[in-house]
Amino acid sequence: MTDRGPRILLSMPTALAAQYLTPLALACRDLGLDPDIVAAGPLEGDFDYVVFSPDGPVSDFSRFPGLKAALGIWAGVERIVGNPTLTVPLCRMVDPGLSMGMLDYVTAHVLRHHVNLDAVLARQDGVWDQGLLPPVAADRTVGFLGLGSLGGACARRMSGLGFRTMGWSRRQAAMDGVDCRTGREGLEAVLRGSDIVVALLPDTPQTANLLDAATLAWMRPGAVLINAGRGSLIDDADLLAALDGGRVGHATLDAFRTEPLPADHPYWGHPRVTVTPHIAAATRVNSACAVLAQNILRGETGGTLLNQVDRAAGY
Amino acid sequence: MTDRGPRILLSMPTALAAQYLTPLALACRDLGLDPDIVAAGPLEGDFDYVVFSPDGPVSDFSRFPGLKAALGIWAGVERIVGNPTLTVPLCRMVDPGLSMGMLDYVTAHVLRHHVNLDAVLARQDGVWDQGLLPPVAADRTVGFLGLGSLGGACARRMSGLGFRTMGWSRRQAAMDGVDCRTGREGLEAVLRGSDIVVALLPDTPQTANLLDAATLAWMRPGAVLINAGRGSLIDDADLLAALDGGRVGHATLDAFRTEPLPADHPYWGHPRVTVTPHIAAATRVNSACAVLAQNILRGETGGTLLNQVDRAAGY
Repeated sequence: MTDRGPRILLSMPTALAAQYLTPLALACRDLGLDPDIVAAGPLEGDFDYVVFSPDGPVSDFSRFPGLKAALGIWAGVERIVGNPTLTVPLCRMVDPGLSMGMLDYVTAHVLRHHVNLDAVLARQDGVWDQGLLPPVAADRTVGFLGLGSLGGACARRMSGLGFRTMGWSRRQAAMDGVDCRTGREGLEAVLRGSDIVVALLPDTPQTANLLDAATLAWMRPGAVLINAGRGSLIDDADLLAALDGGRVGHATLDAFRTEPLPADHPYWGHPRVTVTPHIAAATRVNSACAVLAQNILRGETGGTLLNQVDRAAGY
Repeated sequence: MTDRGPRILLSMPTALAAQYLTPLALACRDLGLDPDIVAAGPLEGDFDYVVFSPDGPVSDFSRFPGLKAALGIWAGVERIVGNPTLTVPLCRMVDPGLSMGMLDYVTAHVLRHHVNLDAVLARQDGVWDQGLLPPVAADRTVGFLGLGSLGGACARRMSGLGFRTMGWSRRQAAMDGVDCRTGREGLEAVLRGSDIVVALLPDTPQTANLLDAATLAWMRPGAVLINAGRGSLIDDADLLAALDGGRVGHATLDAFRTEPLPADHPYWGHPRVTVTPHIAAATRVNSACAVLAQNILRGETGGTLLNQVDRAAGY
């Protein structure tokens, strides 16, 4: 480690840099570093680290001859991995806050429907209606479409909360407490068997419009759909028809084909739809800064960088 | 076991007996019993078991000379334990569904406030507002007043979901992951330290009006109160003042001094209050019937009855 602290450039949209500046400084000091952090500005001088998002001002990394590493704040690196000016180690962001936030989101929205919260909130009119008593978790089935790192974590949590839990994935998975299925017939079984369906699938050619009129018709009448994955999963016109026909009781949607969701989209204000503005899987500044500071410490002390990208593999 | 199946009388309000009849028959058959179950009616003939609530028609148990056991469906037995006509074994209800339901209730209502669900639902107007992103559970503190069997289970669960968790109880408790406090200064610390306060205290002279103007003033401005225990805990006028002054951001209340809560009570329809009709800790028919059937099987086969009341101790 040199006498001076590491010099760090934040290359990201101005509003985002303003959010990162203080938490990153605090996270660095927590690790004994005394950093000099510059947010945006005229980009003069040299830096030890560039903390960047691909939509920030820096695209020519060769202007920083002393650069030790480029630390991304996005999980995806497809827009940066081929940049020929970037010859130093490149790290992507694996933010523990992101999966924590997803678990919170899925837990909250599953439990909202499980305890009939909407009916409770509509029954504040002076009528003492014990018919609002819901079944217990053990009498409710939650089905997960997608059992990757996020979907699998959510399925394990729901099983841990006592729900009957099913899961569908492209390849056969095996998880304690989760009835795992695969294939088209597995998808049918999960949709037919679940009171609440949570979709956490990636955006691939295989998942595009997976939920359309044919598959939505497999859902239990009045069942709930929560899409916390990708908007392309859903045929929007078919979902609206299924909602209006009562096949789907409610849809809570966090991802859309066009984002922000246009103000005139029929999902907005639909009595059976809840729109959330792509917040289920957001990077959280505090936990992301802890990861960045840890990598800067490793860079300064010759340690192995976390989440370093293999440029040949592209991720 | 005799050739005929056990004869069972349901002595409880008619509407409740109608709910128990089929599930109890099914639960008995699951255990290989072939019961003859009578709900209410003229109470003629003899019975092997009376399944009863203290507000049901039977108070003179001596009319059933062949009675083998009296099986209550309430947890509390204070209204029946001194009945001199009851000389056979008496069992109270310990329903696993009740604690499951309480865990569901507390999880749902804590998560509702944690993810700002009310703000999300109020923002269905076409505006894509990512300012709705909540902190993660690790940045939120949930405080429990009462760490008995229900409060302790809920505190453990919230800790397991990643929340910072505090707890207050009369006697010093120690729980992994829960910052346990006791005494008046411990109450102050929990109320000052918590974003969401969950009360699960019993009704005793010590807990009456524990939450009044003085203690509510310790809560964080805008913090949320969830009372799933007893209505006597709260000075209602003081809570309404704290809600109207903004000290308490929201109160979700399941128990009240007078139940049903009178239709003209100011809690109903208050913009910062959610009333639930004493459903957090309800006995669930299916799980209760499984316990009853298990006890009937034990009675028929000479086994040890579950949850038998010690009449000398009174519980």
